[in-house]
Amino acid sequence: MEILQRKIIKEGKVLSNHVLKVDMFLNHQMDSKLMKQIGEEFAAQFNNQGITKVLTIESSGIRPGLMTALELGVPMIFARKRKSLTLTDGLITSTVYSFTKKESNEVTISKDFIGEGARVLIIDGFLARGQAALGLIDITKQAGAVPVGVGIVIEKSFQEGRNLVLETGVQLESLARISSLEDGKVQFVN
Amino acid sequence: MEILQRKIIKEGKVLSNHVLKVDMFLNHQMDSKLMKQIGEEFAAQFNNQGITKVLTIESSGIRPGLMTALELGVPMIFARKRKSLTLTDGLITSTVYSFTKKESNEVTISKDFIGEGARVLIIDGFLARGQAALGLIDITKQAGAVPVGVGIVIEKSFQEGRNLVLETGVQLESLARISSLEDGKVQFVN
Repeated sequence: MEILQRKIIKEGKVLSNHVLKVDMFLNHQMDSKLMKQIGEEFAAQFNNQGITKVLTIESSGIRPGLMTALELGVPMIFARKRKSLTLTDGLITSTVYSFTKKESNEVTISKDFIGEGARVLIIDGFLARGQAALGLIDITKQAGAVPVGVGIVIEKSFQEGRNLVLETGVQLESLARISSLEDGKVQFVN
Repeated sequence: MEILQRKIIKEGKVLSNHVLKVDMFLNHQMDSKLMKQIGEEFAAQFNNQGITKVLTIESSGIRPGLMTALELGVPMIFARKRKSLTLTDGLITSTVYSFTKKESNEVTISKDFIGEGARVLIIDGFLARGQAALGLIDITKQAGAVPVGVGIVIEKSFQEGRNLVLETGVQLESLARISSLEDGKVQFVN
């Protein structure tokens, strides 16, 4: 997605060989127009696949997930990273390890919201080590639903997440694929 | 907002005299079309007030905040409840006590994103005891910006948040104002 790549080049900050900060337009401040375009792009890529639900995870997946659901005309549901006080029973849970935060989270959704046979599009802001995406695929399967695809805003293609997702056989579409952050410079996969 | 009230009556679950669960359409699963209408409604209510930025707080404020920012054509920024690993300096912080979770959170934004003189619309999903809204007003003022208004999706009008916000002199607009949850029944302020 050309416009997203330009935005990353212009406003992203490379903090290390592994960390790209996109707080200017994606992860703290939000360019609301760009977010709408991201939703349109995912909707176009997974159009005609009979998606009935968008599944994402708090918090960076919620904005692109919502815009995608809006474009597809389906509801969105987001997995929580810790149990809510008002969500007590009927949960589907997967354990997701965050390499960034060096901690495991219980990722949960309520059984009520993904029925058997639902066709689920999983959306997240970032794909690096792939643990969150795998957790969402796992939750979808536990619910008896079909993980039709995974849509990622920014993929760090030099980490293992892409291959781990592809190994599950689920279609993966990433809007920006970064091949390297070395020498403080963002390089994209051609 | 008529359509929101109908949705609350139809799909909300009263768990106690103080707790309304709206996981079906607002707080876990999202009715994406309703969320767009909520954004349009806030944009209409604060139109012509020269809003330059929408400020909200993770996580329930992010969806309505994003849709409002999109309608107003301005960026959105969300305050974080704990410090991010890549957000280390230049923070504006306010301490917010959550009566629901019985804990204090440091609520932070980066100084870079709300400049002096910015005209800020604060959006949140819920208003009950008012602590989050007061924290966001405080952050806005610390940034040298103007808190033009507070927009709330669901207000529990029987708790003190409304008065606490009004005492600050900031305009408050709530789309659904609940006067009582007693006897398992949702009543709205006329």
